[in-house]
Amino acid sequence: MIGMVLASLAFGAETDAVKTLSVAVDTVWVLFTAFLVFFMNTGFAMVEAGLARAKNTVNILAKNFIVFALASLAYWVIGWGLMFGDGNGFMGLTNLWFVNGGVDKGYSAIGWTQVPLWAKFFFQLVFAGTAATIVSGAVAERIKFLAFLIFSLVLVAVVYPIVGHWIWGGGWLQQLGMWDFAGSTVVHSVGGWAALAGALLLGPRTGKYRNDGSVQPIMGHNLSLVTLGGFILWLGWFGFNPGSTMAVGDGTAIAHIVVTTNTAAIMAILTATITSWLMQGKPDLTMLVNGALAGLVAITAGCAFVSVFSAAIIGAIAGVLVVLSVIFFDRVKIDDPVGALSVHLMNGVFGTLAVGLFAQNGITGAETGNGLFFGGGFTLLLHQLLGVLSVGVFVFVVTLIVWAMLAATMGIRVSREEELLGLDLGEHGQEAYPDFQGFLTK
Amino acid sequence: MIGMVLASLAFGAETDAVKTLSVAVDTVWVLFTAFLVFFMNTGFAMVEAGLARAKNTVNILAKNFIVFALASLAYWVIGWGLMFGDGNGFMGLTNLWFVNGGVDKGYSAIGWTQVPLWAKFFFQLVFAGTAATIVSGAVAERIKFLAFLIFSLVLVAVVYPIVGHWIWGGGWLQQLGMWDFAGSTVVHSVGGWAALAGALLLGPRTGKYRNDGSVQPIMGHNLSLVTLGGFILWLGWFGFNPGSTMAVGDGTAIAHIVVTTNTAAIMAILTATITSWLMQGKPDLTMLVNGALAGLVAITAGCAFVSVFSAAIIGAIAGVLVVLSVIFFDRVKIDDPVGALSVHLMNGVFGTLAVGLFAQNGITGAETGNGLFFGGGFTLLLHQLLGVLSVGVFVFVVTLIVWAMLAATMGIRVSREEELLGLDLGEHGQEAYPDFQGFLTK
Amino acid sequence: MIGMVLASLAFGAETDAVKTLSVAVDTVWVLFTAFLVFFMNTGFAMVEAGLARAKNTVNILAKNFIVFALASLAYWVIGWGLMFGDGNGFMGLTNLWFVNGGVDKGYSAIGWTQVPLWAKFFFQLVFAGTAATIVSGAVAERIKFLAFLIFSLVLVAVVYPIVGHWIWGGGWLQQLGMWDFAGSTVVHSVGGWAALAGALLLGPRTGKYRNDGSVQPIMGHNLSLVTLGGFILWLGWFGFNPGSTMAVGDGTAIAHIVVTTNTAAIMAILTATITSWLMQGKPDLTMLVNGALAGLVAITAGCAFVSVFSAAIIGAIAGVLVVLSVIFFDRVKIDDPVGALSVHLMNGVFGTLAVGLFAQNGITGAETGNGLFFGGGFTLLLHQLLGVLSVGVFVFVVTLIVWAMLAATMGIRVSREEELLGLDLGEHGQEAYPDFQGFLTK
Repeated sequence: MIGMVLASLAFGAETDAVKTLSVAVDTVWVLFTAFLVFFMNTGFAMVEAGLARAKNTVNILAKNFIVFALASLAYWVIGWGLMFGDGNGFMGLTNLWFVNGGVDKGYSAIGWTQVPLWAKFFFQLVFAGTAATIVSGAVAERIKFLAFLIFSLVLVAVVYPIVGHWIWGGGWLQQLGMWDFAGSTVVHSVGGWAALAGALLLGPRTGKYRNDGSVQPIMGHNLSLVTLGGFILWLGWFGFNPGSTMAVGDGTAIAHIVVTTNTAAIMAILTATITSWLMQGKPDLTMLVNGALAGLVAITAGCAFVSVFSAAIIGAIAGVLVVLSVIFFDRVKIDDPVGALSVHLMNGVFGTLAVGLFAQNGITGAETGNGLFFGGGFTLLLHQLLGVLSVGVFVFVVTLIVWAMLAATMGIRVSREEELLGLDLGEHGQEAYPDFQGFLTK
Repeated sequence: MIGMVLASLAFGAETDAVKTLSVAVDTVWVLFTAFLVFFMNTGFAMVEAGLARAKNTVNILAKNFIVFALASLAYWVIGWGLMFGDGNGFMGLTNLWFVNGGVDKGYSAIGWTQVPLWAKFFFQLVFAGTAATIVSGAVAERIKFLAFLIFSLVLVAVVYPIVGHWIWGGGWLQQLGMWDFAGSTVVHSVGGWAALAGALLLGPRTGKYRNDGSVQPIMGHNLSLVTLGGFILWLGWFGFNPGSTMAVGDGTAIAHIVVTTNTAAIMAILTATITSWLMQGKPDLTMLVNGALAGLVAITAGCAFVSVFSAAIIGAIAGVLVVLSVIFFDRVKIDDPVGALSVHLMNGVFGTLAVGLFAQNGITGAETGNGLFFGGGFTLLLHQLLGVLSVGVFVFVVTLIVWAMLAATMGIRVSREEELLGLDLGEHGQEAYPDFQGFLTK
Repeated sequence: MIGMVLASLAFGAETDAVKTLSVAVDTVWVLFTAFLVFFMNTGFAMVEAGLARAKNTVNILAKNFIVFALASLAYWVIGWGLMFGDGNGFMGLTNLWFVNGGVDKGYSAIGWTQVPLWAKFFFQLVFAGTAATIVSGAVAERIKFLAFLIFSLVLVAVVYPIVGHWIWGGGWLQQLGMWDFAGSTVVHSVGGWAALAGALLLGPRTGKYRNDGSVQPIMGHNLSLVTLGGFILWLGWFGFNPGSTMAVGDGTAIAHIVVTTNTAAIMAILTATITSWLMQGKPDLTMLVNGALAGLVAITAGCAFVSVFSAAIIGAIAGVLVVLSVIFFDRVKIDDPVGALSVHLMNGVFGTLAVGLFAQNGITGAETGNGLFFGGGFTLLLHQLLGVLSVGVFVFVVTLIVWAMLAATMGIRVSREEELLGLDLGEHGQEAYPDFQGFLTK
């Protein structure tokens, strides 16, 4: 008897210690992957700056630097609450403000992970920041600085969290059975639709589309920065996708996700290179980098739901898709200086639908059901499609209204003179490379 | 009976396994956060190089690259022992040399963390390296390479460890009840005071202050590098502050610290942007980046002792302070090419004092007592002030003597001819960008 | 009795939980260190691009970006199986293809780590990618893009895995008792020998060696990138070496390895700086960076087998060696634009031999026996020497044949016109810095 008592006391003490350790391991995992996702801001800044002209570099860098600050503020004040607060199918309604001061109450949709509330918050915050950053690239080289800041604030405070609630916060799409593991839709296509609305209202950069209908390519000023940024984003995705487990478990799922993520990226690089080589005669470095990003966006929804082979196929398709999409957007005269629409919107949509095709039920634990190619019929695919469409309509319409209101009041586009001079001098009164005279000739 | 015996045997075996795992988790945490802090060297190198002129880039990069090597050597040979060796209130006296060959004996002040000695050492080493790096920016574009190397060696071998002993190594300030969680004083203001002494003795760069009293701004040559460096430093701070727990516990404290750290940074970016916009008419990118760094420095002392709301206020003040401080130092004609004094010294002091205002006893466990604004009266604030003043006097006087001795013997400033030509050709016989002719016109 | 039963049930449940946690911690460690090693691709890209001329930058960046994609594909399809599949002393023969679809069977040589198969695979994959990247620098500024891609594919699919099998996959050198902890030989000298074969067949860049026998230095176009890359590689090595434990244990070994790794790097920086200063009159920044890399390569084989003091000596020697080696290769007119042979080949060989001199049996657990300087006699040194020689002969001969076949069929060198114009326009039809006219004058 005494043995039993002692044993169970021992067992109880041990259980507490093991439980604490388990939370500790998950917290370390969530925080470190969040740091990697945070670092993606650097990647976006470098890619976008490198793909712009030297005269607009300061502006792009400043946008990318401050947008995470605005996103952090907006998500802390209200975004988190709208996304994860207990509420109805449309939005959170409980403990909306300031993450309830750090008290973990009323956020049951994210109760499945055992890490402390501030760890959950920070991980979700860096995701919210990503969505805002995506917009920056598509509206580059012509948008007013202040207009972009206000738009970003609205996007992260309201639009992103509501969609996030639908799919991750216990909302109607999640209840329906739509699956988006790390955010091909929640993050990337939300950013993409908002970017599309902005790019449409802004119009193309001066000189991009000639009167005869042909395209005047505008080259990025620094492909070293672009490549640096591409690598950093790729690194960041090893936080983005595997970190979205928000738990380590026995390590099998996170290792699986790392490999699906990488495999999609590398296949997309290879097919984007080949496609670019065939269509343009030579392999274009910017297509290599955008190929990687396209593969990463496309596997984001399904990284935990598909096999490594399926990830390879998804990536291979994404690499072709991004090159064709860049050509497409130029043909319809939607000017996207960095290819953000082709990377985030096109492949965000594709990646979400790909779950409906390639999902294998329970492959890392989640009960998604099987996709079309694995005997699951059209059910999952239709759920995915419904998610894509409803998010697309909601985000595009709402952000179009926001952009239009900004355009009608303060204006969203810099003057033609400022555009020709460069936004760096116009918006910031400084140049990125004052010791180098060369680029003044452009 | 046999049940009891078996159970307790089992319990013993389990306890050992759990204990080992607990050390393992803490070690992984300490090493990874140390890697992030190490990476801050890259951030400092990029920020400083970008804020200097192209003709001095090689010199700045070389300084930043080698200074970590010198710091590592100095801290391994003697610095660690002076800082953490058992001794008196002023300095360590036991097992001073070479970290006692890795045998964990005689370092009781850092016995509270269970990680292996080499992990403790490496974490503290990367902090020591940071202090030396701070100096580099303030003395840039005019200091002799060799003089800087010798100064850095002395700083990390002797000055930094003694202050560190006072506050973290069981010394008199720690006994008194002065609190500096991750080093607003130990690291940042130590670096700042040493930089101030150097900048004063060196005098301003040729041409910075005109005879009529006005300031001739000298623009940094590459704001892409500055922004890259700013992001990397921000990332590194997620090692710097939360890593200073040197233990994971149940994850609550580290998650709290991550969020206070980030919140201070983003508030400082926003207020620095607004302040810069109001005072200079346009938002200056370098102020955005220095704003982030200012907020990070200011929250470093208190990140574990204050709430997220308090962190937001501390950050907001830091962002204003850094802009005003940059203007102040130019007004008193102390030339600091990168704003190191405004970031590290001003905000290191402010952040240390802020603990005395905003601390909430036990908010993540530490028994700091409450700060002035939380009903604790002036006790903590006075301890903090005493820490700030005593460290300031000690470091400023000692480093002024060291700089003066260097100036009297080998000289610390390059010749006027070399300064005009650029330190890259003068000190290193090479240029940073030989394919680009543009900057030769400057 | 019932106490005993309950206790052992409890014990059983606990054991499972503790076991799962232990795997979790190891998996987090292996994945995060793998991410750091992945990030080394960025470092290599920046170092190599910075050390090349502006006109060849796009080409170098594209090579470095795509080579990891090719390596990933090759290592997934067949490389892993050849390296770790159960087989004979020469190569793996079991479950060769596609990592057996993720089923952990038939890879007993890597059964000592408990992490999931995909985690093992990904860690080994990022190592394989490194070997291919090393070649890129030595053949820069004159190799055909497609030839390099095909070569890399062969290297990672076949050559690297076979050597890896010998030393890490249960092959003949491992059985003999040759020790290479993290790959001074397996990774660095394999890359180095392949690079040597390529550089020999390609011949020097046009204009590098004058007819009178003197050397025309060709300066790198961007030393900011070089320094950035150097720091990133240094950071990455904190994944490369300590991560090669593939387990955390009680943290002692990984902390030891972090410190030996860093100590070797910093000593090499200091001795390379001094050597460069003495021989060239001024401290050359590229020698500081290559010094760091040399020290890191040299300690890679022995980081877990030698003391911190021995690491300091190994690093100090490596720093001298790399400077002398750069001079040597120029003297024998083997043109290596980035110093890859001096860093990876010379110091890969030296570091492997250094294990035979400095190893201390069981210093972090491994039963290497003692090296010559620690009373072990010549046995270990001879095993190391045999490893160096056999790997050298095998890799050099095989890769020379591969390069020669490529040269005979598609050609490996761009035309003289393209070389003078720059490979960026020739191979990719784009420039890295189109807004800057300056470099067109070169």
